[in-house]
Amino acid sequence: MQAGNGRRLAINEVGTRDGLQAECRFVETDDKVALVDTLSSLGYAKIEVTSFTSPQAIPALRDAEAVMHRIRRAPGVVYTALVPNVRGGERALECHTDEFNLVMSASETHNLANLRMTRDQSFRQLLDVMVLARDARVPVNVSLSCVFGCPMEGEVPLDGVLGWIDRFAEAGAQGITLCDTTGMAYPTQVQDVCEKALRRQPSLAFTAHFHNTRAMGLVNTVAAVEAGIRQFDMSLGGIGGCPYAPGASGNVATEDVVHMLECMGYDTGLSVPALIGAAHQLAGLIGHDVPSQLSRAGERLTRHAPPEGFEAIHERALARSA
Amino acid sequence: MQAGNGRRLAINEVGTRDGLQAECRFVETDDKVALVDTLSSLGYAKIEVTSFTSPQAIPALRDAEAVMHRIRRAPGVVYTALVPNVRGGERALECHTDEFNLVMSASETHNLANLRMTRDQSFRQLLDVMVLARDARVPVNVSLSCVFGCPMEGEVPLDGVLGWIDRFAEAGAQGITLCDTTGMAYPTQVQDVCEKALRRQPSLAFTAHFHNTRAMGLVNTVAAVEAGIRQFDMSLGGIGGCPYAPGASGNVATEDVVHMLECMGYDTGLSVPALIGAAHQLAGLIGHDVPSQLSRAGERLTRHAPPEGFEAIHERALARSA
Repeated sequence: MQAGNGRRLAINEVGTRDGLQAECRFVETDDKVALVDTLSSLGYAKIEVTSFTSPQAIPALRDAEAVMHRIRRAPGVVYTALVPNVRGGERALECHTDEFNLVMSASETHNLANLRMTRDQSFRQLLDVMVLARDARVPVNVSLSCVFGCPMEGEVPLDGVLGWIDRFAEAGAQGITLCDTTGMAYPTQVQDVCEKALRRQPSLAFTAHFHNTRAMGLVNTVAAVEAGIRQFDMSLGGIGGCPYAPGASGNVATEDVVHMLECMGYDTGLSVPALIGAAHQLAGLIGHDVPSQLSRAGERLTRHAPPEGFEAIHERALARSA
Repeated sequence: MQAGNGRRLAINEVGTRDGLQAECRFVETDDKVALVDTLSSLGYAKIEVTSFTSPQAIPALRDAEAVMHRIRRAPGVVYTALVPNVRGGERALECHTDEFNLVMSASETHNLANLRMTRDQSFRQLLDVMVLARDARVPVNVSLSCVFGCPMEGEVPLDGVLGWIDRFAEAGAQGITLCDTTGMAYPTQVQDVCEKALRRQPSLAFTAHFHNTRAMGLVNTVAAVEAGIRQFDMSLGGIGGCPYAPGASGNVATEDVVHMLECMGYDTGLSVPALIGAAHQLAGLIGHDVPSQLSRAGERLTRHAPPEGFEAIHERALARSA
């Protein structure tokens, strides 16, 4: 397994969009803004701030404009947002969103279930959004769901995935995110898919997006790094999930993944203690513990006191040896 | 990341000892016997059935003799047990235990806290047990705790770890288990430690034992496989833990690790659906859900039904394209 040797990896925080949209409790606009402002100081490459979907569809993010307008933008951080259609794109432009994140699924059934359109219909709709973005000189990333499997269809053929990547590349997308939407990816598959995607479209900026549904989120991240992926989506505290896979846990937790990568010698630009602090702030906002392991266990060298009576145990042991 | 290509890995179940000893509820002897009998049919290389510690020290396993006597032994499965001292060894021999699993810590503070002895005192005591085992022609494995770090001391120097491995090898141990007792290991460290241990004592049978405390249990398993380790401890459902690291979650879950290894093309000899079934049986016995991910999410190709109204959504979408 390769040591990082200081290699820089770019980390995208998606908890503020992909995470908060799945929460029952509405997080107040002021709190969302404060959370994004905290995140802005931590060293992320990109923050997915919100979603310009219909407020009826995702009431948790109905304050998208207010949040985008009021956050303090840190230099060097890309403030992206989910844009589902031209109307969403117009709203996003009005708030000076740095990047449009478009979403469709590599699985026909998942796309219909999630977006109520066939993939071809989604693609045509997203082409219109890409024209809007190009005219406004805003870069476009496409998050392709179910790249590693669909909870309703099963395996998703790689040729089809690569075909969609080609179509978006030809249409002018700058980046593609390979999403393991319901945690079906496994390491050797991740390496194969990522290598083939990078070889097919070497000029695209690829991002990987993993869920920890089957405990493989971290090992899949290492597999993607070894395949050449240099940018990753993560969710603070590990919040978020997919409604079409019951029992599924959420996105990989930013603090868990960054901790591993930093231990291995990669440079994420982020501080693990600061991320754990932010995860605790997030837990307060959503009103429940977050699923990440690091938020409970702390960094690997967290020191614990010996048990009560340890000195007496030690002295008795030494006395026996005397 | 290497594909398994059918390579055989040996899996040891430790939940019946390392897991059950940490549970509040006493699992009845009949239920323990039934659980071990279930596990015996699944394809494990080894099952750590119980512990011959004092019944006062670990009341959860106070029925060690009864369990060992009453289980039905499957051919080819090694039925091992934890043996802390000569008295425990005599009890284990009386029950025809196939292997003695001895335990000490690579960390002086952890050994004192856990065993109330210095490491030298533990070693001398275990030498007496090894004489007993040798005379009875029973093989000995030594589980070395805190190989990858100590929750009280921090880093544990590798030279010291290798020194203890040498001493046990010279004393006639057949196997050494490298234990990440509180989940402090990370992948590049695992690879380094495992490679050096294998090179130092190539004739010993090495096992790796990981905890998922910091979400790295599965990636550490892959790192150990890549370093040449071929045998692994796991705990059904992921039960078990260490009392000296508050907030720590338990052992890696057998079903989670085996699922990943089988997806990658390794041959563990185990069936994931059968493991998930056994994990549900275990959850019933201990009276609470187990922490494994697979016990909730199922195998990666578990199919979920599309959401309600899917057919109507599909028809409306097709009508729009017409």
